[in-house]
Parts: sequence; structure tokens; C-alpha cells
Amino acid sequence: MNDQDSQDPAPYYRAHVFCCTNERPEGHPRGSCKRRGAEPLRDYMKKRATALGLRGIRVNAAGCLDRCELGPVMVVYPEGVWYGFSSEADIDEILETHLVRGGRVERLMLRPEDRKPEDVAARLAAEQAAAE
Amino acid sequence: MNDQDSQDPAPYYRAHVFCCTNERPEGHPRGSCKRRGAEPLRDYMKKRATALGLRGIRVNAAGCLDRCELGPVMVVYPEGVWYGFSSEADIDEILETHLVRGGRVERLMLRPEDRKPEDVAARLAAEQAAAE
Repeated sequence: MNDQDSQDPAPYYRAHVFCCTNERPEGHPRGSCKRRGAEPLRDYMKKRATALGLRGIRVNAAGCLDRCELGPVMVVYPEGVWYGFSSEADIDEILETHLVRGGRVERLMLRPEDRKPEDVAARLAAEQAAAE
Repeated sequence: MNDQDSQDPAPYYRAHVFCCTNERPEGHPRGSCKRRGAEPLRDYMKKRATALGLRGIRVNAAGCLDRCELGPVMVVYPEGVWYGFSSEADIDEILETHLVRGGRVERLMLRPEDRKPEDVAARLAAEQAAAE
């Protein structure tokens, strides 16, 4: 934190979620979040956030967040926490654990060094082995 | 900052900019960023950020950020600093002052309590009067 940060206004949203909904052509080597089902899951998240009556939270669609191989992805600011997700159950867990309780869904979190789904799987397996 | 924050991964992007490009029908009372020229300005920002060789910065389009009356708007995370802008000169100043030098463009910054352009104008006038 520098001098500028300390003068910044209070956050406008307590949590601001951006779900990538970018679409690439069929067969593109990187794939795209939309072709992996991002749009209905983003719609579901928005609907559930409203139903839960969460205040100070905004769920937005965004253009390509450039982590296509891990998609669908979202990023939650100001924390800057990234998640890869693939089901309504994943969305429910992110809503309940992160946005309601302020925790983290470790099994879905992406690290800066994660590039491909295999990276995530290997890292999670190593973390689990270390914990046993 | 709580215990969770201290365990979060390092930021994936040093600065992540979201420019609202939402469009509402002609004549909608709130207006919309796209109808106020958001899209070419967002394209310009992306092009200029690339030309400046800025590293670790991502400029994205986003759906409605719900500050339509002040549009076009953008928000820069993780700082959570909002700007209203209307020209390529505004974009250049945000790029140079905020994203290159880490400062703030005070004349374009939006405060949480700003709802309409008149609010911003009145606040800036009061700030200037207080400084004289």
C-alpha cells in the first residue's frame, strides 16, 4: 500500500465478480469460456446472488480474461481471487463460502502459475499428499 | 485484511481494467455507456496500452457496471478506483498517470456517493474552492 492507496475512496462494491463469457471459433486450440458453458453458469450466479439477497455484490460478464484453457473462469475483486468452475454446484459453493462467509473455495481456486487443467490437478494432488 | 487475504495468491494482473460497454435502448432514462461512446474508447485504451508496452495490465470490456448515469465508466482493480471518461485524451491521462506512474487522475475519479454528472461537477467545484 502506498500513499495513493490510502487516499482512494471506499469500494463501490464489496465484491465485484467478473465471469468471462468470451467465445472463440469452434476448434480454436485455446478453447473459450463460452464454449465451455460460461454463459448459463454466469446467469445462474447472478440469479442466485439476487435470490440470496447479497448486498454490495455485483456479478458481471466480461470479455476474454485470457486464462481460456482453465475456463470457465471468474475473478473476484478487490481480492483478486480466481476460480475455475463447471457446474451450478461450484457456483453455489463460491457464493456461500466466498461471498457470504468471506472464505475461499480452495479446490476451485486458480494460482497465478496455473496454465492448464493438468497444472491445477497436479498441484491439488501434491497439496493433498503433503497434508496427509 | 483478514487471515484469508494473507493466504491469497499473488495478483494475476497488476492492474485489471474493466470498461463498461453495455447498451440500453435509445431514450432509456439512465442512458448507457455504449450509447455515450464507450466502445471506441475501450478499443483505443486497449490499443494504447499495447503500444505503450505495459506489462501485467489487462483491459477488458464488461457488462453493465450499474453507474450508467456517469458513463462511460471504468473500474481499475485491485485498487477499485472508478473513472468517468469521454475522450481519447482522458484515456491517455488514465494510462499515463494511473497505470504507468501509479497515481490518480483526480478530475476523472468517481466517488461512491457520485450518482449523476452534476454530483461530480459540484464536488469538484467544492474541492477546488476549498483548495483556493
